[in-house]
Amino acid sequence: MVTAFVFITCEPQRISDIAQEVAELPNVAEVYSVTGDYDIIAVLRVNAYESLDEAVPGGIARIPGVRHTTTVLAFRRYSRRDLEAGFDIGLS
Amino acid sequence: MVTAFVFITCEPQRISDIAQEVAELPNVAEVYSVTGDYDIIAVLRVNAYESLDEAVPGGIARIPGVRHTTTVLAFRRYSRRDLEAGFDIGLS
Amino acid sequence: MVTAFVFITCEPQRISDIAQEVAELPNVAEVYSVTGDYDIIAVLRVNAYESLDEAVPGGIARIPGVRHTTTVLAFRRYSRRDLEAGFDIGLS
Amino acid sequence: MVTAFVFITCEPQRISDIAQEVAELPNVAEVYSVTGDYDIIAVLRVNAYESLDEAVPGGIARIPGVRHTTTVLAFRRYSRRDLEAGFDIGLS
Amino acid sequence: MVTAFVFITCEPQRISDIAQEVAELPNVAEVYSVTGDYDIIAVLRVNAYESLDEAVPGGIARIPGVRHTTTVLAFRRYSRRDLEAGFDIGLS
Amino acid sequence: MVTAFVFITCEPQRISDIAQEVAELPNVAEVYSVTGDYDIIAVLRVNAYESLDEAVPGGIARIPGVRHTTTVLAFRRYSRRDLEAGFDIGLS
Amino acid sequence: MVTAFVFITCEPQRISDIAQEVAELPNVAEVYSVTGDYDIIAVLRVNAYESLDEAVPGGIARIPGVRHTTTVLAFRRYSRRDLEAGFDIGLS
Amino acid sequence: MVTAFVFITCEPQRISDIAQEVAELPNVAEVYSVTGDYDIIAVLRVNAYESLDEAVPGGIARIPGVRHTTTVLAFRRYSRRDLEAGFDIGLS
Amino acid sequence: MVTAFVFITCEPQRISDIAQEVAELPNVAEVYSVTGDYDIIAVLRVNAYESLDEAVPGGIARIPGVRHTTTVLAFRRYSRRDLEAGFDIGLS
Amino acid sequence: MVTAFVFITCEPQRISDIAQEVAELPNVAEVYSVTGDYDIIAVLRVNAYESLDEAVPGGIARIPGVRHTTTVLAFRRYSRRDLEAGFDIGLS
Repeated sequence: MVTAFVFITCEPQRISDIAQEVAELPNVAEVYSVTGDYDIIAVLRVNAYESLDEAVPGGIARIPGVRHTTTVLAFRRYSRRDLEAGFDIGLS
Repeated sequence: MVTAFVFITCEPQRISDIAQEVAELPNVAEVYSVTGDYDIIAVLRVNAYESLDEAVPGGIARIPGVRHTTTVLAFRRYSRRDLEAGFDIGLS
Repeated sequence: MVTAFVFITCEPQRISDIAQEVAELPNVAEVYSVTGDYDIIAVLRVNAYESLDEAVPGGIARIPGVRHTTTVLAFRRYSRRDLEAGFDIGLS
Repeated sequence: MVTAFVFITCEPQRISDIAQEVAELPNVAEVYSVTGDYDIIAVLRVNAYESLDEAVPGGIARIPGVRHTTTVLAFRRYSRRDLEAGFDIGLS
Repeated sequence: MVTAFVFITCEPQRISDIAQEVAELPNVAEVYSVTGDYDIIAVLRVNAYESLDEAVPGGIARIPGVRHTTTVLAFRRYSRRDLEAGFDIGLS
Repeated sequence: MVTAFVFITCEPQRISDIAQEVAELPNVAEVYSVTGDYDIIAVLRVNAYESLDEAVPGGIARIPGVRHTTTVLAFRRYSRRDLEAGFDIGLS
Repeated sequence: MVTAFVFITCEPQRISDIAQEVAELPNVAEVYSVTGDYDIIAVLRVNAYESLDEAVPGGIARIPGVRHTTTVLAFRRYSRRDLEAGFDIGLS
Repeated sequence: MVTAFVFITCEPQRISDIAQEVAELPNVAEVYSVTGDYDIIAVLRVNAYESLDEAVPGGIARIPGVRHTTTVLAFRRYSRRDLEAGFDIGLS
Repeated sequence: MVTAFVFITCEPQRISDIAQEVAELPNVAEVYSVTGDYDIIAVLRVNAYESLDEAVPGGIARIPGVRHTTTVLAFRRYSRRDLEAGFDIGLS
Repeated sequence: MVTAFVFITCEPQRISDIAQEVAELPNVAEVYSVTGDYDIIAVLRVNAYESLDEAVPGGIARIPGVRHTTTVLAFRRYSRRDLEAGFDIGLS
């Protein structure tokens, strides 16, 4: 499982409409309107790395009103030592 | 439930040690070493807003080797319409 | 009580009209036109965290002429030790 | 009354100590540890413009551990029309 | 006397027209087209703090072709010790 | 095959030593000292996504003298239509 | 052989169309849609330095929808010592 | 007369000491501690262009505690039309 | 002789047309399309400081398609000691 | 002939010493202390592209006190049409 964070900047007047459109896309696990410099953060969890292309450049970035997307991918996930049954990586 | 994303910049030579220390802190749900300009992203999910102060300025920021933290809070969570039984906000 | 600072960048020719519109919104405690890189700073004091979504993405950001908003939330408020009867947090 | 917002960046390991020191200074009305790129925001309300020099370059900036301060001053305060008995400016 | 520096970014094709319009405004002491990232710097010297609101958000920022203004105010003026008959602050 | 670009900023006095150390690491396909704001660009081509964690946070970032790394991953590779026998994605 | 990396920012809604157009240009060896702040990275490998002018300002930059290009050139290529038969520079 | 604005960033704990040292330098007409991202602004008015080298790289920049200087020079000064007896340029 | 470097950002689709127009202007010694964040660098060498105003705000900045100009002036020129017959300053 | 501009940021207290050291290096045609965000600009004119590596990462960047270098290379030189006997490119 690859975990990706997509930081979205969009037309300020349409934040909730655009957030809702993002939430309807496949592979999108969580979507939030947020404080700070970005307007929306989407969390993607995909099993196949290739589906990121369809989800971001082929999905989120195409929504009218989206001005820019910055995607960040997890190298590895860290868990509390007591919970770490198996090595939990961003791909688990 | 308040959802918070904490973007952490730290000494590049100690990314995984620091990520593991962050994972051990209370209220921290997920921790990843990541691509992009930040080194680590921690996802916090807290029921009481006040516990953010203990988790970030009182917790993550104090870890030796952490150079800067930028916290972003969710205003509201958006879900697929078909899943939206109740209004799911960042606080549910 | 959550204290929030909303930094607003807008069309320079309409700063005072937009500041006045922001001042009319619910949950907005103080509004100033300001020096520096931002044009307007609004201070919000809300009892319920959820009302931030309505106040900022659902309110200030939608005002025509607003180009970008950056919201900053208080983790905790600090008071002079002699005044600190009760623990005054950003939520009190 | 001049209203000033002082954005403070400091050593991340000492945010709450420094916030408390700022709160002890004269002319400082409110102090918060905050989300976002800054660590602390102080709100100053001074009757005499000259006291800003003592409060910021002569006060906050001198606290050990403070790395940088950016001060923003209010040009004018905006209030709800119905509340606007007199013209309420940043100086009232 | 409050001394203010207003850094103006504008349409590059109209720098001198806009600089001339700024020079015609009340409270504006000096106006220069300049090297560096800004296009124009205006120096304001006002006796009453309130007149800054009329001069910048209510004046310079409204000139067609102005894209952004960043105002910086003097806390205090420093003079050569031998010249320092009286304490010369940004307000004198 | 995942293609990654790692932008490295390091001590300017040790650019070529550090570039040579990066070149010795597993999974590193190409390393260049470069013009522009970064000092070194490394190109990684890995078959298993997990090996990125070992190559960057666990490898390049740990080299003494490295000040910051920014990793960018390919979503998808584009080839000339006439060459496009199979769909060549960043993972092929 | 000069190796060049061209970082392309473009209309988010047309990333893959533009990436494909870039891939069709002469001298372009590799093109990727990517994570991070840029939308597309093109890798150019040219034997004659002059062909960079035709490839970037005269080629990539002219594609409709391209908003900005930042080109970075390799000073020198570094290879594993054991592979370094001849001095492999960015021009080989 | 060339008019120059020197934006100075320095150790926050020593702003007024450094501002006073700057004020003692030849060719320095005005010095202010200021709001905003810079700590000090010095205004220089020199008759001979060459004296800028001695005043800034050879003067202000050398003061211990100064971290960075950014100098901006006036191309031309603009005055109110009614005051404009002769063409008043930054050099007059 | 004052030496000035003018960094020009312009419409990416018209870099060479605009570079040619810049080259036709008086006082412009060299013009290059360039790598990096800027699109064009012009080198000006003027005997009279005043001619910079006509060359940049009154010349380069007015060319249609120019989005922004940042001018940097030489304080002083440094030459190899053995070549330094006379003191060669940016004004020589 | 490749024309390169090297923007140098260095310890502000040692600008002229460092500028003089840069001037002594081979392939360096011109060196200036400058206004603006950089401290020094060096202009390099090299016949062989490979000598850039020795001049910048292997030369300028190694001088003690240099904090960062950003090199920009000319794609192509533009001359006045009437002067354009032969096609004058950055390499001629």
